[in-house]
Amino acid sequence: MSTVNREIHLASRPTGWPTAENFRLVETPVPTPGPGQIVVRNRFVSVDPYMRGRMNDVRSYVPPFQLDAPLDGGAVGEVVASEADGFTPGDVVLHGLGWREYALLDATAARTVDPDLAPLTAYLSVLGMTGLTAYAGLLEVAGMAEGETVFVSAAAGSVGSLVGQIAKLKGAGRVVGSAGSAAKVDRLRELGFDAAFDYHDGPVGDSLRAAAPDGIDVYFDNVGGDHLEAAISSMRLHGRAAICGMIAQYNDTEPPAAPRNLAQVIGKRLTLRGFLVGDHGHLRERFVGEMAGWLRDGSLSYDETIVDGLDNAPEAFLGLLRGENLGKMLVRV
Amino acid sequence: MSTVNREIHLASRPTGWPTAENFRLVETPVPTPGPGQIVVRNRFVSVDPYMRGRMNDVRSYVPPFQLDAPLDGGAVGEVVASEADGFTPGDVVLHGLGWREYALLDATAARTVDPDLAPLTAYLSVLGMTGLTAYAGLLEVAGMAEGETVFVSAAAGSVGSLVGQIAKLKGAGRVVGSAGSAAKVDRLRELGFDAAFDYHDGPVGDSLRAAAPDGIDVYFDNVGGDHLEAAISSMRLHGRAAICGMIAQYNDTEPPAAPRNLAQVIGKRLTLRGFLVGDHGHLRERFVGEMAGWLRDGSLSYDETIVDGLDNAPEAFLGLLRGENLGKMLVRV
Repeated sequence: MSTVNREIHLASRPTGWPTAENFRLVETPVPTPGPGQIVVRNRFVSVDPYMRGRMNDVRSYVPPFQLDAPLDGGAVGEVVASEADGFTPGDVVLHGLGWREYALLDATAARTVDPDLAPLTAYLSVLGMTGLTAYAGLLEVAGMAEGETVFVSAAAGSVGSLVGQIAKLKGAGRVVGSAGSAAKVDRLRELGFDAAFDYHDGPVGDSLRAAAPDGIDVYFDNVGGDHLEAAISSMRLHGRAAICGMIAQYNDTEPPAAPRNLAQVIGKRLTLRGFLVGDHGHLRERFVGEMAGWLRDGSLSYDETIVDGLDNAPEAFLGLLRGENLGKMLVRV
Repeated sequence: MSTVNREIHLASRPTGWPTAENFRLVETPVPTPGPGQIVVRNRFVSVDPYMRGRMNDVRSYVPPFQLDAPLDGGAVGEVVASEADGFTPGDVVLHGLGWREYALLDATAARTVDPDLAPLTAYLSVLGMTGLTAYAGLLEVAGMAEGETVFVSAAAGSVGSLVGQIAKLKGAGRVVGSAGSAAKVDRLRELGFDAAFDYHDGPVGDSLRAAAPDGIDVYFDNVGGDHLEAAISSMRLHGRAAICGMIAQYNDTEPPAAPRNLAQVIGKRLTLRGFLVGDHGHLRERFVGEMAGWLRDGSLSYDETIVDGLDNAPEAFLGLLRGENLGKMLVRV
């Protein structure tokens, strides 16, 4: 076992788009567990859009990242040292201290997973927070019913691609996705989306009307901005938006242009509802059961974009913000 | 009985703020009822902000008003001729053909009310659509719970003043209202609001933070724009907005500036929900029972601004848009 640990620190807070200079690779000693603690050698760490918000020094639902300290986020790895009951070296665990090779954590903050049941990466994507976000947002927050038309933005991303597939598996009448390239649009069609468009090809409102001429009932929002405005315009009576993210504006330095058609929520009796996956843990058992079944019988696919090397984690994160990933963006440590 | 009927027609569609020239007083013969029909001599007609939207030639939840035809809207009056079972001259009825002296309508579109139980005007305000809008929006759409902090805009208006009082009667911890003049703010304090402010006195966000330093749980929106933005910023986790109207932008000719802080719905798990009172008729019986009780025991007050003469109905409507009313704006025919 190496005695040198490597971590990615936040070197400075980005203004607008982050750059490589906002991050710093730092070497530290591999930690030693105290009572009740474990040390985990991370194998895969997750980079996610919400992390951009935590790079700003503003109070939010999660505290901001601290300067000159390691970033954190979802990770899966092997226990290499344990002073905690129930954990022995070799155990594979899921936890929240990514962006580093070796993580020291209280054992209560780790959950053992079975590496024979699914690939390690699945615990960070389809069977993890990503999957539950898609499942809970679509079915609980938006309350999708059979026969409804669903629109999801960033549809080739980790959450969006699952939203569309779960919608079809749950009986949606029509599923439409938007994405940022022709290749992604092709992939959405392979995944069973009824229609998909590249949002660069014209005004989102026009593309959405063409893809769903009879309107939409549910919008799963990962993008905000013009996508949300288009969704509101296309919504039928009693439409619902589950608002998961607004990646279009995470790097804005000015307050973003919000939907100019918000008044339509009245006449059409629309509901816009923001959510965080953490509020929907009660669905986990049902979620894992259904998802595992769909994975087994081949009715659900998931994409991963894996970047090698912890030193490339900042670049992986920047690529995610630029939309360079297909499905879940992960770093192999 | 006069043989001349007078009606207010839409002479032209307003662009931006309506003017007197958009309306025309037209004399027509008093109609004669056909089978199943009645003729009603209107006593009071309602003018409401939503009517502004119907003056535009756009499809909405109600069809637009037609040019060179009478406007319509809530009205109460006496039956003067009837060819319908169950209706005799002298009956007092509530119906939807206001903006005219004599209304010809199918008896199925009229509802008999008891003039001894409440003043005629109450059927257009506190015991009518206005009251149900306040009641349903606060209790069903926003789901206000005991102890919560409630903010309502246009709080001295017909709906807003009831929202605030119902909130207090239902156990809200703190009720805050905004209005457009010092006199209205004084009136809100008399009505039992815990805090009230004139939105002209500074940025709405600052005034709201001062009035509700610990934040708000429920926002009843009659205004939109900067009021909605302020409410989103002040909302606590799991806050809910019942969106009833956006009077601030009804006369806008450009798409309005929408809340620039909409992304907060995610982290704070907010719900924004538009509604129309027509979807909440199932609450009517409970609503009338509770409201009548509160009126009897003096725990609920309502204000009316009554303009005399049908020829002044356009001016009453324009005054409503300018915020010149305290409580419900009505025209005595």
